[in-house]
Amino acid sequence: EIKFAIQDGRLYVLDSKPSHRSTEAAVRIAVDLTRESVITPAEALLRIRPTDTERLLHPSLDPRLHRQVIAKGLPSSPGAAAGRVVFCSRDTELWVNRGESVILVREETTPEDISSMHLARGFLTLRGGMTSHAAVVARQMAKPCITGCGSARLAASKKAMEVGTHTIREGDWITLDGSTGEVILGKVTTSETIVSDELRQLIEWSIKYQTTHVRANADTPADAQTAKIFGAQGIGLCRTEHMFFDPHRLPLVRQMILARSESERNKVLEELLPHQRTDFTNILCVMSGLPVTIRLLDPPLHEFLPHHNEDLAPLALEIGISELELRDRIRSLSEQNPMLGHRGCRLGISHPAIYEMQVLAICHATAEARALGQDPRPEIMIPLVGLAHELSWLRQRLERLCRTTLDDLGCHDITVPFGTMIEVPRAALTADELACHADFFSFGTNDLTQTTFGFSRDDSFGFLRTYEREGIVKSDPFITLDTLGVGVLMELAMTKGRATNPSLKFGICGEHAGDPESLSYLNSLGLDYVSCSPFRVPLAQLAMAQAALRLVAGPKFQKLSDKAIDHNNETNGS
Amino acid sequence: EIKFAIQDGRLYVLDSKPSHRSTEAAVRIAVDLTRESVITPAEALLRIRPTDTERLLHPSLDPRLHRQVIAKGLPSSPGAAAGRVVFCSRDTELWVNRGESVILVREETTPEDISSMHLARGFLTLRGGMTSHAAVVARQMAKPCITGCGSARLAASKKAMEVGTHTIREGDWITLDGSTGEVILGKVTTSETIVSDELRQLIEWSIKYQTTHVRANADTPADAQTAKIFGAQGIGLCRTEHMFFDPHRLPLVRQMILARSESERNKVLEELLPHQRTDFTNILCVMSGLPVTIRLLDPPLHEFLPHHNEDLAPLALEIGISELELRDRIRSLSEQNPMLGHRGCRLGISHPAIYEMQVLAICHATAEARALGQDPRPEIMIPLVGLAHELSWLRQRLERLCRTTLDDLGCHDITVPFGTMIEVPRAALTADELACHADFFSFGTNDLTQTTFGFSRDDSFGFLRTYEREGIVKSDPFITLDTLGVGVLMELAMTKGRATNPSLKFGICGEHAGDPESLSYLNSLGLDYVSCSPFRVPLAQLAMAQAALRLVAGPKFQKLSDKAIDHNNETNGS
Repeated sequence: EIKFAIQDGRLYVLDSKPSHRSTEAAVRIAVDLTRESVITPAEALLRIRPTDTERLLHPSLDPRLHRQVIAKGLPSSPGAAAGRVVFCSRDTELWVNRGESVILVREETTPEDISSMHLARGFLTLRGGMTSHAAVVARQMAKPCITGCGSARLAASKKAMEVGTHTIREGDWITLDGSTGEVILGKVTTSETIVSDELRQLIEWSIKYQTTHVRANADTPADAQTAKIFGAQGIGLCRTEHMFFDPHRLPLVRQMILARSESERNKVLEELLPHQRTDFTNILCVMSGLPVTIRLLDPPLHEFLPHHNEDLAPLALEIGISELELRDRIRSLSEQNPMLGHRGCRLGISHPAIYEMQVLAICHATAEARALGQDPRPEIMIPLVGLAHELSWLRQRLERLCRTTLDDLGCHDITVPFGTMIEVPRAALTADELACHADFFSFGTNDLTQTTFGFSRDDSFGFLRTYEREGIVKSDPFITLDTLGVGVLMELAMTKGRATNPSLKFGICGEHAGDPESLSYLNSLGLDYVSCSPFRVPLAQLAMAQAALRLVAGPKFQKLSDKAIDHNNETNGS
Repeated sequence: EIKFAIQDGRLYVLDSKPSHRSTEAAVRIAVDLTRESVITPAEALLRIRPTDTERLLHPSLDPRLHRQVIAKGLPSSPGAAAGRVVFCSRDTELWVNRGESVILVREETTPEDISSMHLARGFLTLRGGMTSHAAVVARQMAKPCITGCGSARLAASKKAMEVGTHTIREGDWITLDGSTGEVILGKVTTSETIVSDELRQLIEWSIKYQTTHVRANADTPADAQTAKIFGAQGIGLCRTEHMFFDPHRLPLVRQMILARSESERNKVLEELLPHQRTDFTNILCVMSGLPVTIRLLDPPLHEFLPHHNEDLAPLALEIGISELELRDRIRSLSEQNPMLGHRGCRLGISHPAIYEMQVLAICHATAEARALGQDPRPEIMIPLVGLAHELSWLRQRLERLCRTTLDDLGCHDITVPFGTMIEVPRAALTADELACHADFFSFGTNDLTQTTFGFSRDDSFGFLRTYEREGIVKSDPFITLDTLGVGVLMELAMTKGRATNPSLKFGICGEHAGDPESLSYLNSLGLDYVSCSPFRVPLAQLAMAQAALRLVAGPKFQKLSDKAIDHNNETNGS
């Protein structure tokens, strides 16, 4: 803002100060200046702080409206939403069927809640951290989420919560601001989001300058569509378990798990096959011409079984066993530390039929997508590998099945790459052996952080806050990548992997791929791609372009761009 | 055995074959031949298979007696015992108080069972592997244990088990052969064990030739005494949590955990202090002149809280809160993956008063032991460190407290070394930083194996059996050290640790320190000591002497000794 006066035909500049300018305006100005050839596209890219793009893509609360904040938790997924409070998945469905907007409040969410999370507008959990189940799912769904809201307490009835002097009952309105972590009493109007042409332009320029591509983590055609709009250059992580939690399939999945014989299990798997095929066909069609990395089933089987006593009787009836036997079966599958348990490729090896069904579904979906005139490019990823023999054992079986099936379907010219997640330290330490059986490595930095530190993502939230307060960690390693531990393992895996397989591709699909602070380090590793939640794709696009530009241009550019960004920030803040 | 004849004053050798010879005899012959100067002590050492010494130290079943084997599980702790079956800790006490021998049968044991495990003669668990809680405790207590006995099923009443066509009820006699994993119906007489003079002699010679010392894992004066008889050169791991589970202290420990304020907690800790002091005084006195490495509290606090509904009401009454509140408190402390949760140094940092109490107890015990004319040599070990700041934060506080307290008690000349466990990969990866704050590193290879592989010791048993069958692993990594993954991290930690702290000492206190196959690798690392269960000390002594002798003498000696052992084995087996 410039104050000036004109006197006697002369211009006097009286005062100047930085102008108040929104992120929308900053983006528009940067693009306009480029179009008018005042700055270059590279300079335009360096003027925008990546995190600001994320804010642009989510609904927000009008800052002029009064907000009665009753609690504060962790801002785990940005955006804002108002809705009526419900306390369980079943009630979510009831209220949504009545046409109501709903906010799901839970102690913590579990994969069982996934279908009601699709219905709710936002999530509030009393426990859990920035990378708890609710937080990760919310970011992927681009819904606001507040976690670790310790000042709220569920009432014994489970149909109300106490927050300070307030009692919030089922059906009461609250509003979540996922960008600040504020829980607000009542219904506050939220603004809608629009992807502006200027933002699209910035993304386009970003892609031009990147040396590391950006893919998205997407499990549904809708997520894939969103990712594509934001310029994702493929899907780096398509989790197949979310498809298993679909309420129409869960009964089948449970039958499969509780099957008493392999033949019974195979029969149920045959019924599941067409469902998985449809999932994959739709995603492959949306991403036609781009790689789609499909991860075979990862969670332990007990995650799919009911966790509440009242759900046992109906399930027992359905699959024709006694409730007592069902209880026994569930107990025999339960684990002390499920994170370190019978999951990922361990499951694939002890129950090969599950992965075989998934590979068949992928092959059939590929043929279907091609029949629809699309260019499907599936990649198959095997999770949780720590031993070269796990990978070779599975790859041998699955690749043979894949080849035969594709040939039978007339897709002789399609070759599906097989790769593995690097998510336990031993995988990184023996990467030279693993690389002999892999076309790509994808770093699962969430799990790799868990095992490198020995921190459970679900349980470490409490002591990590103490650690941050005492200066023992600079930041939560589940949010910002730990370069000294996890990063060292990644570098080791890349060096060792390349030594035995020079054409090996590298990606990362953990939450860190959407963290601006981690992205510059990830760029320096020389990965082929990073893969993050769809709504974080623009942020990652911009961050990767900036990192690449700085690396090329050196310290001078670095300084220039930091200044540009600082200026931006200052004005945004005021 | 030589068949001969004498005819016409000439000796004819007609036939010779290897003689049937027990381990006892092999030991006696080796020692006798040395005393008669036929072979050297080194040759005597190389004639005995280390595992055989373990069998010598445990009661066994007379092979001539009939045994009706009704089930087979994993031979998790050697020896044999007969007793009446009980299915819970409470019943163990009732039957033992009546003067009965008892075998404890459980789905799996937990730390809560520790006091009844002290009372029972042996343990049978239906789940769990060779390194489950029951197995580890059993080996330390030198009691027979069979785990993973999958063919047995607990009846719904929990007071009987079904094994094939047999129903075993509370009070029925069974016999366990922990060396073979056989569960035998009825009462079979077991032989008693004697440590022979010859075995003592072998241990003495072993110590002379070792380059790596052998210490014992011992938590009680009795265990320490046993370890000393077997020539342990110190205690490498004194776990303090077992002391917390003592039934007389558990109520205090629970009060401490559930305290509503820090001042309330400190008051209870003051009451616990004299108990811990007595524990330490006794152990330090037994081990006078030898190092005793005391590990500060390691397990998560919820392990000390009741796991059964019927125990809640009395506890609630005792500490003066409602049962509902108690339930809430227990729930708030519960964790999804306790192995990766709020434990070890994380607990020490969030509740510094607990470790402070333990350090005070160690200092007072040291002064007491000295007043009794002993030479106490405590070392303090901080568990589960993964960040240099965790260690520096704790060491600074605790060392200051330790110094002041010892000075106040007149022990100016005693300096207590501080060290850390290396049991998460990040500790190994950043060992150069950690070494700046440590006098010693002790490899906790149980946890390090868990985090390096991402395998839970409690949950991996099922799929590891599949892995062994399919040739994916050669052996259970919880039994035989994984040199390619865990070993690489250990070597890295030693190299990095020495780089910044050349006087750093190294030890290992995981189960692998008692595994004959791992010991030769461990010897090659150049550790200062290995520390194993007391009854495995002779085995480790001998294995370390053999490894050192082979390293010095080279391949020729290697060949000679292998032959000697093979011969031994052959004859033992026939």
